[in-house]
Amino acid sequence: MTGEIIAVGTELLLGDILNTNAQYLSRRLADMGIFIYHQSVIGDNGERVRQELDLAFKRSDIVITTGGLGPTKDDLTKEIAGEYFHKKMILHKESLDLLKEYFKKQKREISENNRKQAYFPEGSIILPNDYGTAPGCIVNENGKILVLLPGPPKENIPMFENYVVPYLQRFSKDTLVSKTLRICGMGESTVVTKIGHIIDNQSNPTVASYAKENEVTLRITAKAKTKEEACSLIAPIEREIRYILGENVYGVDEDSLESVIGKMLIDNNLTIAVAESCTGGLLCGRLVNYPGISRALIEGNVTYSNDAKVRRLGVRPETLQMFGAVSKETAAEMAQGAARTSGAHIGISTTGLAGPGGGSAEKPVGLVYVGLYMDGKVYVKELNLSGDRQSIRNRTVTIALDFLRRKLISNSK
Amino acid sequence: MTGEIIAVGTELLLGDILNTNAQYLSRRLADMGIFIYHQSVIGDNGERVRQELDLAFKRSDIVITTGGLGPTKDDLTKEIAGEYFHKKMILHKESLDLLKEYFKKQKREISENNRKQAYFPEGSIILPNDYGTAPGCIVNENGKILVLLPGPPKENIPMFENYVVPYLQRFSKDTLVSKTLRICGMGESTVVTKIGHIIDNQSNPTVASYAKENEVTLRITAKAKTKEEACSLIAPIEREIRYILGENVYGVDEDSLESVIGKMLIDNNLTIAVAESCTGGLLCGRLVNYPGISRALIEGNVTYSNDAKVRRLGVRPETLQMFGAVSKETAAEMAQGAARTSGAHIGISTTGLAGPGGGSAEKPVGLVYVGLYMDGKVYVKELNLSGDRQSIRNRTVTIALDFLRRKLISNSK
Repeated sequence: MTGEIIAVGTELLLGDILNTNAQYLSRRLADMGIFIYHQSVIGDNGERVRQELDLAFKRSDIVITTGGLGPTKDDLTKEIAGEYFHKKMILHKESLDLLKEYFKKQKREISENNRKQAYFPEGSIILPNDYGTAPGCIVNENGKILVLLPGPPKENIPMFENYVVPYLQRFSKDTLVSKTLRICGMGESTVVTKIGHIIDNQSNPTVASYAKENEVTLRITAKAKTKEEACSLIAPIEREIRYILGENVYGVDEDSLESVIGKMLIDNNLTIAVAESCTGGLLCGRLVNYPGISRALIEGNVTYSNDAKVRRLGVRPETLQMFGAVSKETAAEMAQGAARTSGAHIGISTTGLAGPGGGSAEKPVGLVYVGLYMDGKVYVKELNLSGDRQSIRNRTVTIALDFLRRKLISNSK
Repeated sequence: MTGEIIAVGTELLLGDILNTNAQYLSRRLADMGIFIYHQSVIGDNGERVRQELDLAFKRSDIVITTGGLGPTKDDLTKEIAGEYFHKKMILHKESLDLLKEYFKKQKREISENNRKQAYFPEGSIILPNDYGTAPGCIVNENGKILVLLPGPPKENIPMFENYVVPYLQRFSKDTLVSKTLRICGMGESTVVTKIGHIIDNQSNPTVASYAKENEVTLRITAKAKTKEEACSLIAPIEREIRYILGENVYGVDEDSLESVIGKMLIDNNLTIAVAESCTGGLLCGRLVNYPGISRALIEGNVTYSNDAKVRRLGVRPETLQMFGAVSKETAAEMAQGAARTSGAHIGISTTGLAGPGGGSAEKPVGLVYVGLYMDGKVYVKELNLSGDRQSIRNRTVTIALDFLRRKLISNSK
């Protein structure tokens, strides 16, 4: 079964508000096996609503509109829907009573405008609005299902969940189950090339890749009669992808690099201290995203000045003088110093040139070193990043976390 | 002039991501006098892209697409656009060179997939991508203007601002000038109520409010024959708004709280040190966003454990025992300790319960203290925040920065 979402509202076309309804409804409908093939946004204009309904029903079985159910003259989605299906508008007494009660509660008089909110295309199923004045409705005519919902998310979402989901479930024979694999340290094009044969031959399950900031996700979605059956379709595909991508797959579903690392540290009774220069606290901030981290994180040091690197971490002034603050040597001493001065098992450090100024031919903007002290050894990774100050710093944090994750895996083997 | 926006991406149809590009582009185009009559979202499917282009150009003069410029087989917006206009795909050598350079810097081999990103419909204007591998392009054919932009907002927005805006401005007879006032410490509804008479009576300039995370912006846009004329229309409105909102207006246009604070610190030869508990490095990370901050920031301490608070900052064990780590007293000693141990003029601290666990009846999740040591005095601000762990931590950082900004202003008076 395929569907479309039409949002009616000039405020969306002006960019005054974000179309969060489209995201919410699309995701929930996909969960139910109803795939949204088209979303559109149009203004509060009768002719455009009519044209869009016409186009939508040529492509899809279910059309869901949001917005245009209010009391003003501009709100005309319901009236146009009635015309589209050649239905008279009929008063729904129960809705009028609820409206009257609503206004009485607010100590206001019901206006003539509001009365129109109780009229619906003949034969509609009425959807009560538990959080506002505009009820919705469903018109099911010759296999064309039109669902009219109000625009404000706080009215739209409960109406959808409480009244539309139970109605639509009868049309869905299959269950959909998705599993997301999270990948770090490999670009989207490389991932897609490596598992090209899986993507090319997909039907059920499907495999889709998405590039997020500094990571790639692969979503495997299976359709089956039961949840168990869907999961058993996903398992061999997941196994094959994990075999091909190896350690680049760092987690699944709601995992994050920091939650995966946090769990590994705690499970192995390891403590960590952080020493940051160019990332300025962001690396430690990412670790603290994980609520349980207090059992592993001893402290963080943002040693932005040379003086702080010497005083807080014991970096040798000779090292700074001979190799500079942005060097393999300084990164190593920062990581070691972070562990030594705090008593942590592991020390991790960053030092680099995030720009925009400060670069030279020898040491250009984007040159960053990540230091890692673990089990008495120091490892340093050199990065050459492009982009602006913020993106260099964010990518450094992700690469540093991934570096730590891989070392934790190889050291526990 | 009328326009449409077509977003190409299955991840939007699945509800994996929000279509923030549509909002951003619609608003900016409206500023330029180009009204968006239609937005749509379709999947990565050649036939659907073709159909949608066809429909869009029947209704509008300018069509902007987002997404589908990546290296994979799914990414086919550009190829379909070429077919639609009956144009051959031509190699743009400069783009290929930039791609090669990009991959060389990353020490990766350019894949065959990525090479296709350097091919464009013959006669296109190429739009460089300063933040990724996918260049965009503009095809202007018999008055039909098609603009192809990449999907990720961090690539899409700068490409639009730097290359598309100057191109589209030639179609507008008037010059549009916008100035954004940035407001912190006041909610959007309060701002809008206080300047209601200005918003209600607007025509030229227009005034639009936007609620961003933890701040509000007011955009004043004037239309005139020249830039100077437009600026002189903005000036009195800006003056009036500043008079009404006072110190809540912290900056304009590209300012950020951290850049405003960074400049104030440097102008006054003041140095600062940071001590963070619940924010875990994010406060210091925000300060380091400002490139010049090395002249003012001495160091940051993420003292997540009690032990680190005592050892690094000299917080008294008695204070921690009597009042707890999340207390007015600990926040004060952390701020003072950060300044004392580093020799900075100013110390700023955070300590609080970001959740999800760890709350009690007396100290619920969301209770946060911000400490500030300045000119020999200590100030503490108590916050009671709602939301999840990440939003409590982010709001704490913004409120702490705003607290610092206001004290810097009042102390310099």
